Amino acid sequence: MGDIKEVYLDYQSSKPVDPRVIDGMLPYFHERFGNASALHRVGDVATEALEESRRAIADYINADHDEIIFTSGATEANNMALIGYALKNKRKGNHIIISEVEHISIRNIAKYLEREGFDVSRVPVDKYGRVVLRKLERRIRDNTILISVQNANNEIGTIQPIAEVGKLAEEKGIAFHTDAVAAEGLLPIDVKRAGVHLMSLSSNDFYGPRGIGVLYMKKRYRVNPILIGGGQERGLRSGTEDIAGIVGMKLAVEIMKREMPGEVDRLQGYRDRLINTVLDEIPDSYLNGHPTERLASNAHFRFDGVEGEAMLLSFKDKGISVSTGSACTSKTLEPSHTLIATGLIHEEAHGSLQLTPGRFNEDNDIDRVLEVLPEVLTRIRGMSPIYNPKSR
Amino acid sequence: MGDIKEVYLDYQSSKPVDPRVIDGMLPYFHERFGNASALHRVGDVATEALEESRRAIADYINADHDEIIFTSGATEANNMALIGYALKNKRKGNHIIISEVEHISIRNIAKYLEREGFDVSRVPVDKYGRVVLRKLERRIRDNTILISVQNANNEIGTIQPIAEVGKLAEEKGIAFHTDAVAAEGLLPIDVKRAGVHLMSLSSNDFYGPRGIGVLYMKKRYRVNPILIGGGQERGLRSGTEDIAGIVGMKLAVEIMKREMPGEVDRLQGYRDRLINTVLDEIPDSYLNGHPTERLASNAHFRFDGVEGEAMLLSFKDKGISVSTGSACTSKTLEPSHTLIATGLIHEEAHGSLQLTPGRFNEDNDIDRVLEVLPEVLTRIRGMSPIYNPKSR
Repeated sequence: MGDIKEVYLDYQSSKPVDPRVIDGMLPYFHERFGNASALHRVGDVATEALEESRRAIADYINADHDEIIFTSGATEANNMALIGYALKNKRKGNHIIISEVEHISIRNIAKYLEREGFDVSRVPVDKYGRVVLRKLERRIRDNTILISVQNANNEIGTIQPIAEVGKLAEEKGIAFHTDAVAAEGLLPIDVKRAGVHLMSLSSNDFYGPRGIGVLYMKKRYRVNPILIGGGQERGLRSGTEDIAGIVGMKLAVEIMKREMPGEVDRLQGYRDRLINTVLDEIPDSYLNGHPTERLASNAHFRFDGVEGEAMLLSFKDKGISVSTGSACTSKTLEPSHTLIATGLIHEEAHGSLQLTPGRFNEDNDIDRVLEVLPEVLTRIRGMSPIYNPKSR
Repeated sequence: MGDIKEVYLDYQSSKPVDPRVIDGMLPYFHERFGNASALHRVGDVATEALEESRRAIADYINADHDEIIFTSGATEANNMALIGYALKNKRKGNHIIISEVEHISIRNIAKYLEREGFDVSRVPVDKYGRVVLRKLERRIRDNTILISVQNANNEIGTIQPIAEVGKLAEEKGIAFHTDAVAAEGLLPIDVKRAGVHLMSLSSNDFYGPRGIGVLYMKKRYRVNPILIGGGQERGLRSGTEDIAGIVGMKLAVEIMKREMPGEVDRLQGYRDRLINTVLDEIPDSYLNGHPTERLASNAHFRFDGVEGEAMLLSFKDKGISVSTGSACTSKTLEPSHTLIATGLIHEEAHGSLQLTPGRFNEDNDIDRVLEVLPEVLTRIRGMSPIYNPKSR
C-alpha cells in the first residue's frame, strides 16, 4: 500500500479505490470534463457517461435507471431517504421506526426528525444484534410512514432480516428504507427481492472513490430534495454532477459484479481463520455479533480486562490499522451503541476489537495480526488491575 | 483535449482538472485512502491531508483554518449559507436580500425559503448587470438577517461591488454572503477586504475536481447543518470526507495562487480580442455586461435576428463548444434571468452567445471561433424572417 507500510484490517471504515477504477476515471478529469447540462459535444459526453453509469448501477441492484439518484455519499442518501421522505409524506403520518443498531448517520437524522416534530421508535435487537421482527411489528402504528433497517451492521457485521422487514412493510403499506453500505460487495443487493423502497449506497464501499453515493428510490416513493439549486437529478439533487466520481462508482460496481463470489470466499476464509484462532488461543475472548448470519469480512471480538483504546494504540505502534468499532464515532470514545444494544455493559463494550479484511489483504496480513494480538493482550492484561483470568 | 477534438470556450460551465492536480490527487485514491475519523496511522494520514488542505485554502482567501467547511460543491455551500444561516438565525428576523442576477442555485434556495416563511427581496441591477447599491440599501429593514450578492456574474461576467455591499452589511449588522464561484481564478478573493461573512467556493472553478466545495464561515456567523450524520466538520457537515477531492482542491488553489496574474493577463487578451473583433466586424452585435468591470475571461454578445439555440447547434456542428448562458439552466430553454434583469426583452435575451476561454485555450482556438462566427451568423440571419440589418 504505497508509502504506508501498514497492515490494514479496517476496510469497514475506508477502502482504497481499486486501481482499475482509478484508471477508468482518469479521462473524466481532464479530457471528458464537461457539464452534463451544457448543450454541446463536451456536455453530451458527460451526459452519456452519467446516464450509462446510472443504468449500470440500476442494473446491479435490479432497479430501473430512473430510480437512481446520485448523491455526495451515503450520508446524503440517508438524509434524503429519512428527512426527505418524512417531510414529503408528513400528511400521511409522523411516526418512523429505526433499529437500535443503525449507523450514526441514521441515528442522528432520527434525532433531528424528533426535534422537527416526528415520533421515532427504536426497535431492540437480540444478543447478536439482529432486529427482532415481532418487536418491530408491535411498534407499527396507523401513522407509521417509514421503517429504516440496515442491510447489515457496520460494526459487528450482523446481517439483518431485511426481506422479512420488507414483506412486513409492504403488507402494512409503509415505506421501507435500508442503509446497505455495510453489505456492499459482501451480500447480493436486489431491491425487488428485498422489498426495499429506498436504499442508500456509497461508492467507496464498492472500492470506488469517495464523495459519491446513490439513493435508490422506487417509483411512487417520493422524497423532498435536501440540496436546492440548479435542479439536476430531476430536481431531487441539485449541484453539477461529479462525472469522474460517478463513472468511478459505476466501474467499481462492475468489477464487484464480476468478482464478488470469489472475493467473498477469500474474505470469509480470512474471517474464519481470525475468529477460530482468536477464540481457540486467547483466553477470555468472545465473538460479538452473530455466529453465522454475519458479513464475510467481519471479525469482532471482546476481551476481558482489556480497554479498546489501549489495544488500538498498541496495534498502531506495530503498524497495524484496526478499529474498536465505528470509525464515524471513534474519536468520541463513547462506547458503541450497537454493542450496548446487544446487551453488553459499558466495560465489555469498551474492550472490543473490529477486524475487517478486504480486497487488498494477503495471507501474511492475517498472519501478522494473529502474531501480534496475543502479545498485545498479554501486555495490556498484565498491567490491568481488574483482569482476573476465568478460563485457564 | 484527448479524444474530444473540440474548441472549448465554455470554461464558465465546466473546467478540465489541471493535470498537476490529478497527479497530486492520485496517491489519495489507493495509498492514502484512510478515514479521517479512524484512530490509526492510515487515518492519521487522512487527517493530516484534510487539515493541511483546510489551512492552504484558508490562507488563499485570508481566512482562518477553522472558518473553512468542506462541502460537496458550491450548491451545498449555498444551501448552508442561505438555508443554514436563515434557520439558525430566524429569531433575529425573517428577511433576506439577494440580487436579481444570482446563480440559479441561490434563486431556487430563495424560493424555498419563501415557502418556509421567509421574506426575500430581490435587488435590481443596472443595464450592465451591476447591483445598484442605493436600491440595496433601501431594501434593508430591521428584520433583515442576510444579504447574498455574488462576487461576479456567472453569465455576463459583471463584477459586483461586493466591498461596498460588505461595508453596508457591516454597518447595519447584517450577515453578508457571496457566491464567489464565477470570480475564482479571475479576481483576488480576500474575505477580510471584501467584508464577507459567508462565502461559497467550488473546487472545479479553480481547475480542481468536481464534487468538492467550501463554505467560508466567519467566526460568530453560525449556520444550521444541512446534512446530518456522523458529525464531521465540527458537526456542520456530516459524511466521510473525500480526502482525494479535498487535496485536489488544495492543489488547484495553490497553482492558482502562483499563476493567476499571468493567466488573467492571457485570458484578458483573448477576451479583448473576441470583444473587439466581434463588435468591429459583426453588424448589429452588442456586448452584454459591463464594458470594463467584467471578468477577464468573459465575452458575452447578442446579435439581432439570431436565436441562441440555432447558433449553439451550428457551433456544435463545427466542433466548437460554446454557451448561450448559464449551463445550469440551459436545458430549460428559458431566457436568461440575468439578461432580462439588465433590461433586455425576451427576443434580445434569446440571441446571446457566451464565450469563456480558460487555462488550456490557445491562440488558434480564438482564431477558429472568430473564423466560424461570421459564417454562422450570416447563415442564420439569411434564414431569418425577422432580421433587418440596421447598422450597414
